[in-house]
Amino acid sequence: MFLAGAMLLPIPFSLYYGDSDSLALFAGAFITFVCGLVTYHTTSFDNDLRAKEGFTAVTLGWIVFSAFGCLPFILSGAIPSFTDAFFETMSGFTTTGATILTEIEALPHGLLFWRSLTHWIGGMGIIVLSLAILPFLGVGGMQLFKAEVPGPVADRLAPRVTETAKILWGVYVAITLLETALLMFGGMSLFDALCHAFGTMATGGYSTRNTSVAAYQSVYIDYIITFFMFLAGVNFSLHYRFIKGDWKAYWKNKEFRYYLLIIFLAILLIGIDTFVHQYDTISEAFRYTSFQVLAIVTTTGFGTADYEQWSASSQFVIFILMFIGGSAGSTSGGIKVMRVYLLFKFVLSEITRLIHPHAVVPVRLNNTTVPRDVVFNVLSFFVLFISIYVLGVFFMTLLGLDLITSFGAVVACLGNIGPGLNQVGPTDNYAHIPDMGKWILSFLMLVGRLEIFTVMVLFSPSYWRK
Amino acid sequence: MFLAGAMLLPIPFSLYYGDSDSLALFAGAFITFVCGLVTYHTTSFDNDLRAKEGFTAVTLGWIVFSAFGCLPFILSGAIPSFTDAFFETMSGFTTTGATILTEIEALPHGLLFWRSLTHWIGGMGIIVLSLAILPFLGVGGMQLFKAEVPGPVADRLAPRVTETAKILWGVYVAITLLETALLMFGGMSLFDALCHAFGTMATGGYSTRNTSVAAYQSVYIDYIITFFMFLAGVNFSLHYRFIKGDWKAYWKNKEFRYYLLIIFLAILLIGIDTFVHQYDTISEAFRYTSFQVLAIVTTTGFGTADYEQWSASSQFVIFILMFIGGSAGSTSGGIKVMRVYLLFKFVLSEITRLIHPHAVVPVRLNNTTVPRDVVFNVLSFFVLFISIYVLGVFFMTLLGLDLITSFGAVVACLGNIGPGLNQVGPTDNYAHIPDMGKWILSFLMLVGRLEIFTVMVLFSPSYWRK
Repeated sequence: MFLAGAMLLPIPFSLYYGDSDSLALFAGAFITFVCGLVTYHTTSFDNDLRAKEGFTAVTLGWIVFSAFGCLPFILSGAIPSFTDAFFETMSGFTTTGATILTEIEALPHGLLFWRSLTHWIGGMGIIVLSLAILPFLGVGGMQLFKAEVPGPVADRLAPRVTETAKILWGVYVAITLLETALLMFGGMSLFDALCHAFGTMATGGYSTRNTSVAAYQSVYIDYIITFFMFLAGVNFSLHYRFIKGDWKAYWKNKEFRYYLLIIFLAILLIGIDTFVHQYDTISEAFRYTSFQVLAIVTTTGFGTADYEQWSASSQFVIFILMFIGGSAGSTSGGIKVMRVYLLFKFVLSEITRLIHPHAVVPVRLNNTTVPRDVVFNVLSFFVLFISIYVLGVFFMTLLGLDLITSFGAVVACLGNIGPGLNQVGPTDNYAHIPDMGKWILSFLMLVGRLEIFTVMVLFSPSYWRK
Repeated sequence: MFLAGAMLLPIPFSLYYGDSDSLALFAGAFITFVCGLVTYHTTSFDNDLRAKEGFTAVTLGWIVFSAFGCLPFILSGAIPSFTDAFFETMSGFTTTGATILTEIEALPHGLLFWRSLTHWIGGMGIIVLSLAILPFLGVGGMQLFKAEVPGPVADRLAPRVTETAKILWGVYVAITLLETALLMFGGMSLFDALCHAFGTMATGGYSTRNTSVAAYQSVYIDYIITFFMFLAGVNFSLHYRFIKGDWKAYWKNKEFRYYLLIIFLAILLIGIDTFVHQYDTISEAFRYTSFQVLAIVTTTGFGTADYEQWSASSQFVIFILMFIGGSAGSTSGGIKVMRVYLLFKFVLSEITRLIHPHAVVPVRLNNTTVPRDVVFNVLSFFVLFISIYVLGVFFMTLLGLDLITSFGAVVACLGNIGPGLNQVGPTDNYAHIPDMGKWILSFLMLVGRLEIFTVMVLFSPSYWRK
């Protein structure tokens, strides 16, 4: 029913621009509302959600949203195939931004707005998921955030989630509105500014233009979006603390510092390379490099330049950034900086342990020792991420895609980025992928978005055993 | 001095075939002997080697062998560049089999024999290293073999290593002689049979022919080598137990079963694909598929077909086999089946732990619980392997190689395989790689061969602290 309400929001834009998609949006909202109402009245649930049920609830949530959220695309005839429409909507709600549209500007304004809004709604879900739900489900080391999230300390999940959600959504809405205003100041229409702000803050990447942000040819807009992509890749509880007056909140945080370091190194490595081989001036090299680095490391996927024109080493840095992703507790995907940092510290501690077999070498984060169980969680996340990546690439090659396209498509979807490499590169789209491939990639978006384990536990026989 | 003695062994072949390389071999042996003698008399060492010193001793051993072992190539003028000769010899002693030679058959017989002998000597070193030394240094989970290795149970390293080495080398020599005899039965000369048996049992892959094993055009020889590659990829302590009369030794071992399973699945997946797209008969598809699968998974690298002509999915399976490698305690490289198995079991146990947070879910191997410390060791091995792989690929792309060539070259050297992908594929060689690249790849061969940690601890500041 919430989704049905959201589907009505694009209608004013549709009417304003005189487009013909209002009816499809309204019909979609109506069907969704009726189904919601029937389900609400025919099912009953215990208010006291247990951890185990949390996995199913979250996974089903994203699937149901995508299945109903694609109705406007189908009903309007804009995306006639259910596979395509589902892919596009899952890509929206998971804030991936991979598109099957070959001609984005041909879409009516209502649908374009809805497409960007799915990002923004997905982003809302992810912030709450990663900072209020997953820490209590103990997924992939997210329990480290138990102590960090704002809101009342409570034992039961429901009231805590509600309070935390209110606080974080406030931050999310505020930053989105600020970006919208700044983009309008740069000459964007309210419609374009909102859509791009949705795409930025959710680290989604759907644009209203065929050539993405490059279409605006504006240094100002490029840097505004670069800066807000950077913000969207930061743990939202840090934004909250900063707004509350804790001016050192960012700098005190180890993950934030490493996030900065990774961005700095990537811009340096690619910047030198593109300045030598591609661009005429340092400012041009910096502008395009920083935009693309932020677009990829935050897993947003907007584009102002085609990184496939860069050298192999720069492309490889981009490829590795796709795996790393932004900060935990942000809307970005990928493995996340916090986990990469813990993996790195873990390996160092193991090397020390080889030299001094009887020494106790703890892994530390933000001046506290990370429990071994959490280190195990993070390691299993990494192993599973790589395993699913390998399986995904294998399935893509089976469908006839070449190696580089498969390498790119799978990380672009599993890491919720959008653009990949070769045939799914930043100037291409996913229209040509076989239907089976689109379903596999949709599944990978979901798996990546829900931090792998949330979905994978559902495939474990012991989950279903009484 | 041992190496100097070994350098004399090819001379009879050189004389028999009337080649002109005897002098270079003799001169190389002489220089090596004199240097050895001087070092022996000017240095003194405590007989009671400590664990910490073991890392340096082993790493230096491989470097010194490669530095002196390349003398015959340089002195004869066959490989004038030191970089090339060192690469070729390191590739030999690490049983990698990556070659910089564009015209192998132009080499005189003495040097060809020496080249193959470096494999065999390297293989001897690896068996003892992995079954007698690393278990006591606690590298990458190898301590699991503490209880499994043959030989007397002793607290001090030296006598135990000596006893274990004698037993395992007996097995190694016996299987090598058996293969030599069977290859001669198939029409090979003693020279060719010995060289190929050396290359097989060490999972090295240097051939005496430009087109590798394909040159013999013999179904019999193909299957003999396939079978012995299979044996070379098995833990040598299992061979020993089998010879001693424990007929169920293989089957009782979990790693062996998974090694079989991986080979079976790979042959099935690639076999169906190549039968449909490449070969006319099932027997032809089976012959070429099984040879190539065994050549890659055991990290031997012999070739009878160009897998780069296969479809992307079959190439991807080959690519993944390169990472997996053969069994621990064999002469093969890569991550090793035992570790892949433990990673898989670990992820399953972590999924179960998410569902039942208070359950104790141990990781088991061969009916015993694997201590958490060992699981940590294996995990750190995996993370470090992937990290070094990523760094290696980055350096290769910096030198101007394309992505696929870099992906292939780095795993082919780090995993001690030999042939990689694209420009270093099975029909190519490493001659065209820039000198800096050859040094990096030589380093990666060493790192991979010594199970990563043996070399990496030497880069840790705490290793050098008093």
